[in-house]
Amino acid sequence: MQKQGNQTIKFDNPPQIISSASIVGNKENQGPLGEYFDEVISDGYNKQPTWEQAQIKMTKDVMDKTLYKASLSKSDLDYLLAGDLLDQAIASNFSARKFPVPFIGLYGACSTMIEAMALGAMMIDGGAANKVLTYTSSHYQATERQFRTPNEYGDKYPPYKQRTVTGAGATVLSDKQGGVQISEATFGKIVDLGVSDPQDMGSAMAPAASDTILQHLNDVGRSPSDYDLIVTGDLGKVGKSLVMELLSEKGCNVEQNFADCGVMLYNSSQKVGAGGSGCGSSAIVVSSYLLPQLMYRNLDRILVLGTGALLNSVTPLQGETIPCIAHAITLTATGHLVK
Amino acid sequence: MQKQGNQTIKFDNPPQIISSASIVGNKENQGPLGEYFDEVISDGYNKQPTWEQAQIKMTKDVMDKTLYKASLSKSDLDYLLAGDLLDQAIASNFSARKFPVPFIGLYGACSTMIEAMALGAMMIDGGAANKVLTYTSSHYQATERQFRTPNEYGDKYPPYKQRTVTGAGATVLSDKQGGVQISEATFGKIVDLGVSDPQDMGSAMAPAASDTILQHLNDVGRSPSDYDLIVTGDLGKVGKSLVMELLSEKGCNVEQNFADCGVMLYNSSQKVGAGGSGCGSSAIVVSSYLLPQLMYRNLDRILVLGTGALLNSVTPLQGETIPCIAHAITLTATGHLVK
Repeated sequence: MQKQGNQTIKFDNPPQIISSASIVGNKENQGPLGEYFDEVISDGYNKQPTWEQAQIKMTKDVMDKTLYKASLSKSDLDYLLAGDLLDQAIASNFSARKFPVPFIGLYGACSTMIEAMALGAMMIDGGAANKVLTYTSSHYQATERQFRTPNEYGDKYPPYKQRTVTGAGATVLSDKQGGVQISEATFGKIVDLGVSDPQDMGSAMAPAASDTILQHLNDVGRSPSDYDLIVTGDLGKVGKSLVMELLSEKGCNVEQNFADCGVMLYNSSQKVGAGGSGCGSSAIVVSSYLLPQLMYRNLDRILVLGTGALLNSVTPLQGETIPCIAHAITLTATGHLVK
Repeated sequence: MQKQGNQTIKFDNPPQIISSASIVGNKENQGPLGEYFDEVISDGYNKQPTWEQAQIKMTKDVMDKTLYKASLSKSDLDYLLAGDLLDQAIASNFSARKFPVPFIGLYGACSTMIEAMALGAMMIDGGAANKVLTYTSSHYQATERQFRTPNEYGDKYPPYKQRTVTGAGATVLSDKQGGVQISEATFGKIVDLGVSDPQDMGSAMAPAASDTILQHLNDVGRSPSDYDLIVTGDLGKVGKSLVMELLSEKGCNVEQNFADCGVMLYNSSQKVGAGGSGCGSSAIVVSSYLLPQLMYRNLDRILVLGTGALLNSVTPLQGETIPCIAHAITLTATGHLVK
């Protein structure tokens, strides 16, 4: 691999994504992408005694499903790369207990899935691994309770607020060429323009997303039209509009080919404020919708950004603003349908 | 780089650690290693309004100090790699706000510093970076409040309980050869043998540490006597004894050259239970004591393990046991004192 420009890594032998899967909640299943997901859990408890254990079970199940779809066993993996929004990333850590595979824990808030895929691709291209499993998850009740009003108090949805996605997604990256490849990765800087309202994550994250998009295009010497789609993780409607405005101010027009996973996930009748948020948002849309679109050549080259707001439940009460980050990967279809 | 055995990566061009620094609390300064640390903060508040902000300030200061010692500016860095114990790793995220450098967020509980150094070495050896800054921190009051009895209630110290270290440590890794190098990295598996008492972290983490030590020695084909020192991050007295017992059962004798940073940090008169714990424990001992010992050839080759307990404050209340992890790096002195 080699560094290209200031923040981008170009892979010499771009790792292939040989398998992906997702498990979602009922609300996500009822949205426009419902038909694409692999499984739906019965309700928020997922047959477990607590919401946290429901999320851990969903995460374990998506790891197994992704391996099964790749016809691999746990011992075929070199590394697990994962993280999530629950304090101390317990959904990711606990779900790896039965995996006899080295675990590399990450935290990038809702950018974690793309961070994991970027690091996994680096490990493979650098020669440290042949196969890695990347995964993450989020869970409406577990996350909302931790970060926002306790659910039981009855939660209001102003138009700029987003709903945490219930969903788990995973991918297996391989050193074998072909299929859909991760060809570049652009790790983002922390950007904090002073937004302090933890209900308005879209506005907080938009400047970080815009920064990484501009940096990526500059590093690789392309324009937005060189991509079939530029898609962010969970900016929601407010953040999506703001990114398009910020990019437009810099002379970068993405009117034709810009989307946000959090917006794609729900119908307007589903009353989710500005859309979905959470680690699961980009993870399930990438795993079950975007990757198949690339595999079947409905899309040829896309830029996917994981977008994360790096606050916790204490910092807004202490008067802090919200530092945000966005990591990007370029996904390229080679047209070789390799098993 | 190349994979060696099941879990170890051997670097082709081992990255050099060109700078390191630490900032500690009063208790750590009064311990046996006090004279080695770069700075001491005045008290738990570190001239800030909250404990969390005290930790963030200490972390920012150690980043600046480490760069200063390397005669580098922020723009010389390719990446920041960091994480910490505060919910959503805010000490690491927030302290990177003024750094115009891509940030890769990690979470390995108290193994985070060694995880960061291992990943940073991979990025450099793989060609993705020339210089990276790795850092972490922990803070007694901020951490104990989050995980254990609120400090104000008056906290008891049974002999197996550990005290969270107040300390921040950082290193700069470079692609230039010489000095003290990271020659190998062994990422650990998650190990959970059923310990459920969050006061007894040493017993919970010992099996993970033992697993990674045995795996490393097997992967590289060495015995403990090939190392001047094998040192764990924060097992404390109880965990340290347990690791030595677990290793001995497997025919691996480390009686002569085994130490734990959490034990090294305090005198027995300091009333800290079994010793220190927290991300800062291994970070400050590596940054300010072990690296100089290697630089001046009092030590030639050591194995350093970061040891992490991957619980949060909710999981013990939900009846969960504690998954643990240990990551290791080999540090080798080349004897070339390169600036």
